[in-house]
Amino acid sequence: MRTDAQHHFKSIQSEICAALAKLDGKATFSFDEWQRSDLSGSHGGGGITRVMRDGGLFESAGVNFSAVEGTLPAEMAARLVNVSGELPFFATGISLVLHPLSPMVPTTHANFRYLEVGEQSWFGGGMDLTPYYLFEEDCRHFHQTLKALCERHNPGYYPRFKRWCDEYFFLPHRGEGRGVGGIFFDYLGRDDVAELLPAKAFAFEAAQTFLPAYAPIVSRRRGEPWEEAHRNFQLMRRGRYVEFNLLYDRGTLFGLKTNGRVESILMSLPPLVRWEYDAQYAPGSREGALLQVLRQPREWS
Amino acid sequence: MRTDAQHHFKSIQSEICAALAKLDGKATFSFDEWQRSDLSGSHGGGGITRVMRDGGLFESAGVNFSAVEGTLPAEMAARLVNVSGELPFFATGISLVLHPLSPMVPTTHANFRYLEVGEQSWFGGGMDLTPYYLFEEDCRHFHQTLKALCERHNPGYYPRFKRWCDEYFFLPHRGEGRGVGGIFFDYLGRDDVAELLPAKAFAFEAAQTFLPAYAPIVSRRRGEPWEEAHRNFQLMRRGRYVEFNLLYDRGTLFGLKTNGRVESILMSLPPLVRWEYDAQYAPGSREGALLQVLRQPREWS
Repeated sequence: MRTDAQHHFKSIQSEICAALAKLDGKATFSFDEWQRSDLSGSHGGGGITRVMRDGGLFESAGVNFSAVEGTLPAEMAARLVNVSGELPFFATGISLVLHPLSPMVPTTHANFRYLEVGEQSWFGGGMDLTPYYLFEEDCRHFHQTLKALCERHNPGYYPRFKRWCDEYFFLPHRGEGRGVGGIFFDYLGRDDVAELLPAKAFAFEAAQTFLPAYAPIVSRRRGEPWEEAHRNFQLMRRGRYVEFNLLYDRGTLFGLKTNGRVESILMSLPPLVRWEYDAQYAPGSREGALLQVLRQPREWS
Repeated sequence: MRTDAQHHFKSIQSEICAALAKLDGKATFSFDEWQRSDLSGSHGGGGITRVMRDGGLFESAGVNFSAVEGTLPAEMAARLVNVSGELPFFATGISLVLHPLSPMVPTTHANFRYLEVGEQSWFGGGMDLTPYYLFEEDCRHFHQTLKALCERHNPGYYPRFKRWCDEYFFLPHRGEGRGVGGIFFDYLGRDDVAELLPAKAFAFEAAQTFLPAYAPIVSRRRGEPWEEAHRNFQLMRRGRYVEFNLLYDRGTLFGLKTNGRVESILMSLPPLVRWEYDAQYAPGSREGALLQVLRQPREWS
């Protein structure tokens, strides 16, 4: 399973990078292969970090693959598998975050992973959309594509994973979602070993579904006109993205606490970000309309 | 003590804002008085948040005063006073963060506070300097001013509080200090009630020392020429500031976990920030020289 998952995630990384570079039309992805070694000798593995900057479409885009193993701190082990004490772990997956230059094109994030902690193993992942300006048909397209994916595997998945996503990508201190959601799933196959193969099939197909879920939105919105005020709102909203990732994101904290490769973990952070004290937006404005949806998640399918 | 501390911190806020506005020469501070009320009825208090934007010197500057009370979550109570279970708390203090526009003028932060948790009370605080380009005489001035302050109270304070500051404002995932330090102190007067009055005297005088420690550096550096490349480095280093504040800063987490006023807590975040994957700086460059000091804290006095 380890080899299979690594192999698969690595080849999806190539496919996604090739498609995104084509979509971008100007910049290409770097290829940064790294090894992970720890002085204590208890950690190993490595990954491939691929990054694109100053593209025609993407101000920054990062697509990570990694496969690492080591010892999980007791605190993390307790949370992941409810076992006390340190445990050996293995983790492989891909993780991507795309920050378009145009505030009319949504930011997106996707992550698919296979984990082993002690005796247990499972798949997790998901993808979600973070628009700055709301185009309802984009939200519907994204969610409907994910719903169709889910229904090919388990009719209970979409409502469960959509809700999980809304709950996960939530900033309690702001009372706001990070975006308009998508799906989020975890521990798939952990508690019943017979579920591990179907979990794998779902995770692999979900990873393949990222492009059809996102690319059509890009094509629709890349020509949309925008001005400095829209850009400014985008930079402010990117601040929320940073707040979520550094305050709450489990993947980020997992990476930092397991001595992960910092530059690869934090490539999720946006290229340029603004914070401004107590910015206010009128309820009837386009900015206010987005905030309303972030405060009250909707059904999109 | 509560009244005395509130009174004093509030008046220091006025003094500092007046002096900083004069130093800036262009912008003035807003005056935002807020009340804190919680639906559960267990929280109260309020504060005054004062913010300056797009000044002649400061791109953003925030000086907060607050006095709040409520119930401290068990997790925080355990950490602060080693008592299990929720506890009533009272906290008053000022907190300021200044982000100059010029990358040649250092960012600075100062905070002075009085806390009561359950049966215990104490003073804490400190101030630290975050330069983007290193001028050794600035670091020496800052530290020597703080050392002189400490020596008027207790000859053991400076070495202890200087080291505490280096240890506190440290980003383990980067292996870097946030800046060149200063002093940091906490729990002063907590374990011996006879120490509370001297602790108060020290905290109050420390707050008065902020201006003489920082203002001369501003005057020396505000005319220093800079270019886009310096500005870019400043924006990247501001990213580290954000990482520290959201990942590690106890004040930020305390505020967010006690349902504090988000806009006041996060006014510490810089106005404009950049992240760039795996940026490298030559060891012999000015940027490299700063990094070396951040990785290996020095004695400045």
